[in-house]
Amino acid sequence: MFVLDRNSQETLVDQVCEGVQRQIETSKWLVGSRLPSVRKLAQNLNVSVFTISTAYDRLVSQGLLYSRVGSGYFVAPRKQAVRQASEQEIAVGNPNCAISFVMNAVDSGRYVVPAGSGFMPARWLEDAIPPTVVGRLVRSEISCSTPAPAQGLLLLRQQLAIKLTDIGISSQSGQIVTTFGATHALGLICRMLVKPGDAVLVENPSYLVQHAQLEQAGARIFSVLRTPEGPDLAMLEEVIQEHRPKVFFTQTLLQNPTGSSMSPVIAYRLLSLAEKYGFYIVEDDVFGDLCPGKKLRLSSLDGLRRVFYVGSFTKVLSPALRVGFVACPREFTEGLVEGKVLSVLHGSSLQETLVAHVLRSGRYQSHLEGLQARVMTAHSAARQALSELNIQFDPLSVDGLFLWGKLPEEINVDDLVADGFGESIFLLKGSIFSPTGDFDRYLRFNAAYGNDPRLLALLSRYIPQLGVPEPIKRGVELQNTSGVYPPA
Amino acid sequence: MFVLDRNSQETLVDQVCEGVQRQIETSKWLVGSRLPSVRKLAQNLNVSVFTISTAYDRLVSQGLLYSRVGSGYFVAPRKQAVRQASEQEIAVGNPNCAISFVMNAVDSGRYVVPAGSGFMPARWLEDAIPPTVVGRLVRSEISCSTPAPAQGLLLLRQQLAIKLTDIGISSQSGQIVTTFGATHALGLICRMLVKPGDAVLVENPSYLVQHAQLEQAGARIFSVLRTPEGPDLAMLEEVIQEHRPKVFFTQTLLQNPTGSSMSPVIAYRLLSLAEKYGFYIVEDDVFGDLCPGKKLRLSSLDGLRRVFYVGSFTKVLSPALRVGFVACPREFTEGLVEGKVLSVLHGSSLQETLVAHVLRSGRYQSHLEGLQARVMTAHSAARQALSELNIQFDPLSVDGLFLWGKLPEEINVDDLVADGFGESIFLLKGSIFSPTGDFDRYLRFNAAYGNDPRLLALLSRYIPQLGVPEPIKRGVELQNTSGVYPPA
Repeated sequence: MFVLDRNSQETLVDQVCEGVQRQIETSKWLVGSRLPSVRKLAQNLNVSVFTISTAYDRLVSQGLLYSRVGSGYFVAPRKQAVRQASEQEIAVGNPNCAISFVMNAVDSGRYVVPAGSGFMPARWLEDAIPPTVVGRLVRSEISCSTPAPAQGLLLLRQQLAIKLTDIGISSQSGQIVTTFGATHALGLICRMLVKPGDAVLVENPSYLVQHAQLEQAGARIFSVLRTPEGPDLAMLEEVIQEHRPKVFFTQTLLQNPTGSSMSPVIAYRLLSLAEKYGFYIVEDDVFGDLCPGKKLRLSSLDGLRRVFYVGSFTKVLSPALRVGFVACPREFTEGLVEGKVLSVLHGSSLQETLVAHVLRSGRYQSHLEGLQARVMTAHSAARQALSELNIQFDPLSVDGLFLWGKLPEEINVDDLVADGFGESIFLLKGSIFSPTGDFDRYLRFNAAYGNDPRLLALLSRYIPQLGVPEPIKRGVELQNTSGVYPPA
Repeated sequence: MFVLDRNSQETLVDQVCEGVQRQIETSKWLVGSRLPSVRKLAQNLNVSVFTISTAYDRLVSQGLLYSRVGSGYFVAPRKQAVRQASEQEIAVGNPNCAISFVMNAVDSGRYVVPAGSGFMPARWLEDAIPPTVVGRLVRSEISCSTPAPAQGLLLLRQQLAIKLTDIGISSQSGQIVTTFGATHALGLICRMLVKPGDAVLVENPSYLVQHAQLEQAGARIFSVLRTPEGPDLAMLEEVIQEHRPKVFFTQTLLQNPTGSSMSPVIAYRLLSLAEKYGFYIVEDDVFGDLCPGKKLRLSSLDGLRRVFYVGSFTKVLSPALRVGFVACPREFTEGLVEGKVLSVLHGSSLQETLVAHVLRSGRYQSHLEGLQARVMTAHSAARQALSELNIQFDPLSVDGLFLWGKLPEEINVDDLVADGFGESIFLLKGSIFSPTGDFDRYLRFNAAYGNDPRLLALLSRYIPQLGVPEPIKRGVELQNTSGVYPPA
């Protein structure tokens, strides 16, 4: 039948489960047939009755077996159903649907070269929350049995207030609300501030999910050009005077998708405009922690009076957690918590305790330092390789996870993206970041994959005159198996 | 200064941190003063330089110290600010605001007797996800570095499909979408199906957060009485004919707040009405797993053609996780995933992997069996104690976490609830569950606390003619320290 290996690293229960599964998969035990009794199999394999009964119960939960009281365990008929189910997953590949693109950007692990991904490669984040730390925390400090309060765990909000103080934003835990990531935070702010018919301002290009959120809220969306130093202020004032927007959404540092950071001059003048015309600003700072040193944020200047600060740990710490937060003008805290209750009732104390401990232990800060160096190295390698293909980049935006590349004029971007799909190379079209549908010659590249030879080969087929460039080497031998350049 | 205890269970780093904190708190080291250098303190305490430098770095992250390159570490001025912050938490105690009540229901750990809580006592759930299991999973099977796909981890969705098959609902992983709990799921369905001005039907009484979600979506909300056997069908058909609702929200099993379960006859006739008048049904089954045996759900009869099934693990497995899901008619899967992307981008692979493993290992099923027994025992003890106070309960609803109690006529419920707040006894008014503001003589009791002597004493002051009843004993000595009756 099958034998157990007592020297294996696998537990005996695991081995029994696998043995039974093999018998079923190879049709040695047929659907409906009765398995050996627990006692008999225990005797045959020379293990305890407990081992067999635990294994059988697990297989029942997995849908492989069913039990009948008094008669024993039988091979279940429904494995087939479950197997079929996984083949009927919804397809997400419509290159003209922005949300479909976002789903791909999230699930980009399915691509060989996820060049359009919005996430760091897993390897860049593995040091951040080591399994041993999680293990220790759940043994000593995390309870899985109590909910987090609606506003968020106080322990985490206090750490966040300290973190904000460190980057020059004075805040208090009472004005911080935790969320399931930055997108959740932006959605809650949007629903609180924006009523149907309200005018809102976004940058062009900017985060596409936010455009969809604003549409869902019934906003009239206006956009101003994002220049390499921030929003185009002349255009901004014009739109403001005409449409009197209620709120302006921006990213001060390492803007998505352009990678540009706002100059202090523009930041100051933007705040003055907000003051003058009485609109709110939402500062989405999900990438700010990638900037070494203390860069200026709008929230530092404003002191959280008319600026909402949005942060997240999904990008730079762990995409397996969804933990973000809003630090807001105090009078909005209660409204935000109410919105959070309506949307998800409350947060996850498991996730929030984990993040609080990573912050408190200093582990977050040391992780960031390593990550900043990795991102910078990858960014410059990608930039150099792609530049050699005649793809243009803004000279001021030289850091961060994203490169905003302008392709030569003759290229058919739709064909390129479709070809990429065919070769399991995921590319993200620039036009989906534009509320006006512009930037159709742009692609957003993820720095981690921008120097991948398969990507470069694909691109060079479309820009043939220059030939395939060599991937940029940084004193490290390329390893073609990793799929990530430069190897970290 | 301070000494280290090498026999302590605490790490040396922890001890150094605490020692430094004490020096600062007792004002031996003042704000702005320089700490001993890393090397010097290491010598003094006879530990490694690494130990001291780790401790100092942690204290920097905690906001207690700051460092200046080349000059060392200093006592930071901002501890005060952080301390103040925790005193400026928003107050959530307005007894007339439904959402404020919900915040209390979530954060009910702050009450001595959380009699209105919506959650199981922590001790009832502690066996479900033991720390050792989490530790093992994060070492071997959970990556903190990769995001979950927008629809949810396939591993979890497959387990959910098996779970549904077990309770008689045939489904496939492709039509399941994971969410951050049931409230999130209900909100996504609401936003997908309900446009402003659409008529929707809810039961009276029913889940108050859902009423607020529907209001937010601009729905016209109509309600039908929830009888002990399900919605009042005569009233339902009348409302349907007049207002043609798009969707009906219900809970088949252990309805919140009444604890009633729908009879098969009503379930069948309800589905026939949905067929006849072409509306959808959302079946919120967050408490169904508390029912021993295989109870009939609407989704089993309907086969997920016009019924959306909503499940969650927050109530019965772990409120520290927020994991719920929708199993929906196949044509809605993509729309739901899009809505999820707009709301939170994607789920937490940490949480989803954990739940998948708890399901697959059979641990969920064995946890449920113990929990069902505990809930039933607590329910009947609470019912008996409260009945002796002349509080009335429906004779058909005899199980589940909630008791829906009707108080004698002469009681001023608002005064009672306010008095409860004063004594740290959290009570939940029945009227907040009613879209029509009825049921003002009802309270929703949590079975775990319904037999608490402090609650009974409070109630008996309002129903004086009967005296204070003895808490019901079930062959177990009461322990006044636990705050939970009966002791589990």
